[in-house]
Amino acid sequence: MLPDKTIYVDNSATTPVSDRALSAMLPYFSESFGNPSALYGYGQEAKKAIEDSRRAVAKAIGALNTEIYFTSGGTESDNWAIHGVCELRRARGRHIVSTEIEHSGVLRPLEKMRENGYEITLLQPDKNGMISPRQLEEAIRDDTILVSIMTANNVIGTLLPIKELCAVAKRRRVLFHTDAVQAAGHIPINVRELGVDMLSMSAHKFHGPKGVGALFIKLSTKPGELISGGGQEKGFRSGTENVPGIVGMAAALTERVESLNSDMASSKAMRDRLIANTLKIPGVHLTGDPENRLPGHASFVIEGGKASAHLINMLAEEGVCASSGSACSASSKEAPHVLKALGYDSDVARGALRISLSPMNTDDEIDALNEKLPRLIERFRSRREATIR
Amino acid sequence: MLPDKTIYVDNSATTPVSDRALSAMLPYFSESFGNPSALYGYGQEAKKAIEDSRRAVAKAIGALNTEIYFTSGGTESDNWAIHGVCELRRARGRHIVSTEIEHSGVLRPLEKMRENGYEITLLQPDKNGMISPRQLEEAIRDDTILVSIMTANNVIGTLLPIKELCAVAKRRRVLFHTDAVQAAGHIPINVRELGVDMLSMSAHKFHGPKGVGALFIKLSTKPGELISGGGQEKGFRSGTENVPGIVGMAAALTERVESLNSDMASSKAMRDRLIANTLKIPGVHLTGDPENRLPGHASFVIEGGKASAHLINMLAEEGVCASSGSACSASSKEAPHVLKALGYDSDVARGALRISLSPMNTDDEIDALNEKLPRLIERFRSRREATIR
Repeated sequence: MLPDKTIYVDNSATTPVSDRALSAMLPYFSESFGNPSALYGYGQEAKKAIEDSRRAVAKAIGALNTEIYFTSGGTESDNWAIHGVCELRRARGRHIVSTEIEHSGVLRPLEKMRENGYEITLLQPDKNGMISPRQLEEAIRDDTILVSIMTANNVIGTLLPIKELCAVAKRRRVLFHTDAVQAAGHIPINVRELGVDMLSMSAHKFHGPKGVGALFIKLSTKPGELISGGGQEKGFRSGTENVPGIVGMAAALTERVESLNSDMASSKAMRDRLIANTLKIPGVHLTGDPENRLPGHASFVIEGGKASAHLINMLAEEGVCASSGSACSASSKEAPHVLKALGYDSDVARGALRISLSPMNTDDEIDALNEKLPRLIERFRSRREATIR
Repeated sequence: MLPDKTIYVDNSATTPVSDRALSAMLPYFSESFGNPSALYGYGQEAKKAIEDSRRAVAKAIGALNTEIYFTSGGTESDNWAIHGVCELRRARGRHIVSTEIEHSGVLRPLEKMRENGYEITLLQPDKNGMISPRQLEEAIRDDTILVSIMTANNVIGTLLPIKELCAVAKRRRVLFHTDAVQAAGHIPINVRELGVDMLSMSAHKFHGPKGVGALFIKLSTKPGELISGGGQEKGFRSGTENVPGIVGMAAALTERVESLNSDMASSKAMRDRLIANTLKIPGVHLTGDPENRLPGHASFVIEGGKASAHLINMLAEEGVCASSGSACSASSKEAPHVLKALGYDSDVARGALRISLSPMNTDDEIDALNEKLPRLIERFRSRREATIR
């Protein structure tokens, strides 16, 4: 449990389940616990809860409720999108376009597809993490079956121009998937405005529970299944539905979307104050796009640092939970692959710091961070190469 | 929520989360919510909870803790086992042996493998649902890469001779997977005694939460991944871990195993009393093996019934939650594929009834069922073909 004075600023890694989401979930563990496939009223309660949740998630992203499929999380959603389109478009081609800065939930399945004879083109972003429509235009071929580009990058917070990129793919009749795991619940998302065919979400990134996510699939698109069996989710994703998880996801997303504008404004204000102060420290640079970035996302590289883990540990000793850039690679001594893709010298990239805020953070916490960071960064730099705890 | 007098006897479909499991889970939603991959103490708490849970699940089935991989449920575990072995043994062959009475979580991925050029041999059980070692012996070929046979059947409750079947596969150096979704937490399971290479479990079948399961994978076996990405679960199953779900699964399984002997005895006593009484009704027959069956599982076919759903609805009107045989196919007008495989005339198979008990059921509930069933079965038979509600 968080000690009282802990400052949790690793919300891009995961978030606590909100009170509202947890309250919504609780009746479905031991009370309305029926199997949604059962015929009696008791299973139907669970079924109704799922369908209400589907409607809520659909509404939050401007989709039809029949376009929302619940999964076990963002990584499954990403894997499914890639696997499913490869199966669907098997006859048409074996070329996929993505980017060097995708999450490993996209990059790893793409690698596996490469081993299976697919050709994968990974677009290289500019220094800010941006991919241009022209780059995509040039990469798409006649045998391209899928473009997968993330909505917001987890390491550097950059928001990519999905609407414009998607328009390019549409002109070439190529399916477009976006990993919106970092974006959903944090910025406005409307699948119709974006034009995407598939979009991945993960509940625990927006104060919903771990172990549940969703894949938006446009009505006309019928990807192959990743997990097949009893035919749940209209035959597209089998397995007894995670009823409490689904209910919690819908409640959390609804809650976030209701206060999205004011939350974005307050996150941005805190973020910008933090960034302005941190950039006063010599040799500290912002990573990612300075303008087009997630409202609560501040990421830096620190010249002269040896390994981010040292800094993360020093912050932890002072009660601050932060990250080097990616939860999944946190314990790795490697610099995040994203920073390498942006062209950062690997020495510099090893001094990465990510501070990701939620609307639950406070101005006092930003004050505390602004006090701590200059001091700790100085100590971080003076530290010699040492064993990472 | 269950009205007070409801008799819930559909525990093979799903079970309520036990108080102990729910209590164990609760701190991990909003308090110890850290990402297990994070470096700070806060993520490490979550990591420790996962490793403690892994140890508990391993202990419950006689495995090493390094042999337990958490998944989103039984269906994912089944899909993964099949997909993973096909990838691992690609160079060796494309033949798989399974049975006609497997759960769709096994049968559907096998069908997909067949579409991908694999040959699938489905063994036909005898009338009781038994598969003999000799049948398996005769089916295994030099290019056989996997045998997948369930530990206990969901529709008819039959316990298959996994140890003997596994011995046959071992002699032929073929990997053996068993879907133990209905068995884990209900009968003693020891993976070493059975000799299996892979075993699927699902938490919500033994009073743990929905949306979490596990796959036991013997130490020496390295199947391909189904869901790849950030490298969680030692690189074999990516995606941020469902910490509360995993903790709940371990707590529930530990609880079941602790009282397994006395629970089995009391379930068996209730089951046998119910079976004896129900078989007094003319034209009602037990399905599955009379001796080798799950302790709480009673399944029947009723001659002269038109569609099980009618009977399930009549029972529901009297507060009894039961099933025709399989949660996943509950709303289908089709007879369960299992009963067809056993050679039941499809007219008879449409009159299927499954009553699955848990240790939480009571003798009074069995008395009530014994009073209701003769009456309702008579009404069921007199009912003409009508619209299923």
